[in-house]
Amino acid sequence: MHFSLFLDIFNFIGIFVFAISGAMRGVRAGLDIFGIVVLAVVTAVSGGIVRDVLIGAIPPQSIRDWHGIALAVVAGLLVFFFHRLFERMQYPVLLFDAAGLGLFAVTGTQKALDYGLAPEMAAVLGMISGIGGGIVRDVLTAQVPVVLRGDIYASAALLGAILLLGGDWLQLPAWLSLLLGASCTFVLRTLSIYRHWTLPHPR
Amino acid sequence: MHFSLFLDIFNFIGIFVFAISGAMRGVRAGLDIFGIVVLAVVTAVSGGIVRDVLIGAIPPQSIRDWHGIALAVVAGLLVFFFHRLFERMQYPVLLFDAAGLGLFAVTGTQKALDYGLAPEMAAVLGMISGIGGGIVRDVLTAQVPVVLRGDIYASAALLGAILLLGGDWLQLPAWLSLLLGASCTFVLRTLSIYRHWTLPHPR
Amino acid sequence: MHFSLFLDIFNFIGIFVFAISGAMRGVRAGLDIFGIVVLAVVTAVSGGIVRDVLIGAIPPQSIRDWHGIALAVVAGLLVFFFHRLFERMQYPVLLFDAAGLGLFAVTGTQKALDYGLAPEMAAVLGMISGIGGGIVRDVLTAQVPVVLRGDIYASAALLGAILLLGGDWLQLPAWLSLLLGASCTFVLRTLSIYRHWTLPHPR
Repeated sequence: MHFSLFLDIFNFIGIFVFAISGAMRGVRAGLDIFGIVVLAVVTAVSGGIVRDVLIGAIPPQSIRDWHGIALAVVAGLLVFFFHRLFERMQYPVLLFDAAGLGLFAVTGTQKALDYGLAPEMAAVLGMISGIGGGIVRDVLTAQVPVVLRGDIYASAALLGAILLLGGDWLQLPAWLSLLLGASCTFVLRTLSIYRHWTLPHPR
Repeated sequence: MHFSLFLDIFNFIGIFVFAISGAMRGVRAGLDIFGIVVLAVVTAVSGGIVRDVLIGAIPPQSIRDWHGIALAVVAGLLVFFFHRLFERMQYPVLLFDAAGLGLFAVTGTQKALDYGLAPEMAAVLGMISGIGGGIVRDVLTAQVPVVLRGDIYASAALLGAILLLGGDWLQLPAWLSLLLGASCTFVLRTLSIYRHWTLPHPR
Repeated sequence: MHFSLFLDIFNFIGIFVFAISGAMRGVRAGLDIFGIVVLAVVTAVSGGIVRDVLIGAIPPQSIRDWHGIALAVVAGLLVFFFHRLFERMQYPVLLFDAAGLGLFAVTGTQKALDYGLAPEMAAVLGMISGIGGGIVRDVLTAQVPVVLRGDIYASAALLGAILLLGGDWLQLPAWLSLLLGASCTFVLRTLSIYRHWTLPHPR
């Protein structure tokens, strides 16, 4: 019960930060208030909806329950009215995206485990939950998805998912595994942006 | 029973007009006969398929039953042979798209209610049904989706969905609620195109 | 039992060749090793996942069982290290794509039949299985999807699906129907590339 509470809290924070990344992209793409809110919602819930459909949790959480979408709408409106605040950060879309990536990677992995998937496939589902929202946001605004731009991105999500599995295996408290996995994804992704780290390219 | 008949009729008209909007886009993109028909079918059935997967109506209506796809194929072939007729209209893609938007917004909302979703989520599902086909059409032909182009679009679909809910609440006859919601979406969307109405943009 | 073995073999070959087509595209788009592997996996499994969700086989085969994704990862790594070998072919992406198209068109049709769909809809599902991976690969790398580029593509997949249905109807051995359908799709698609065959365009 405690555990499911942590999972919900992490999930809602993930929805909120992904919604901000989507809304900031909408501001930059010159969208109106409704377009910004739609992009915020779509970015926030797509990864989770794809995960839920694939593991058979239908209707998906974000469809069954209105809290996630409402939270994303609030985030979209906050960005609409106060986008100058967010723009003071150097890479606001990428930073909030990195936070959502980490949070969804661990919550997605845990939910897939709860639905009976094997650990290695649960990690893949966690990665999909993490990268899904950003892919949809980038495709809708006609950009090459961040996952393909040659940075450390999906790999960071997969690392977080694997750390969660490791924490489960070591029987760490659930909140610690979740926090550990999400933080490592966030730190690795953020460092790779600031330090311009890349993975090897074909010769 | 009468009610379900109205729903089916509205749904088939929606498939037909969305198919025409997709096929006209295919003509403009220089596609061949098969590409035009595929784009007609995909535009016509995507919104409904996404809706059905999300509410758990699997296999989706358009997959279980061949009538919808057959109708979209016919619409695609009509456009292939007689596209000059459609081109005499000022904005053929947008007008047929507006009609499909209204029809699918109300039928999608109603179907989600029938599957036990709460009214506020049913309206979101109706909006998704309405905007889904156009998004897929636009992404496949490498255009920024109409829903994000800064016009009144998803908001018009949501208005139609809410009017349907209002009609249900007032216990209006079902055909009247459906007609009212679909018409308001169509009129609002069409007026916004001709009058260049927009929603506020961030400063 | 024999039959299901043939289906699995065809399916795994389809996953492998689609993964190569995706990875080769990744090399050309300048992706890093992880991006190449992700694009390989996504190209290889998207068509089958969409098919499985639509026929109600949830969780989809590629999610339930790790062999398909592992095979696609291996194909992606092979391309990463030995891409010069593949590049000696004139159109490596298109050739491997044509092979995957044929294999998935027949296995997709057969699986949809096994799940109780009517033959005409099973053929549509087969076509979707065949064209799905290539569409996702092309959308993610910001190209107009091959299915819409005015060549013989979806039509070749549909032909293979229909040949499989014909073989079933004539009670040919299962492996023969599968082989026949897949080969005809591959030959028709490949010939249409080399000979620049096209379907009629609107006047």
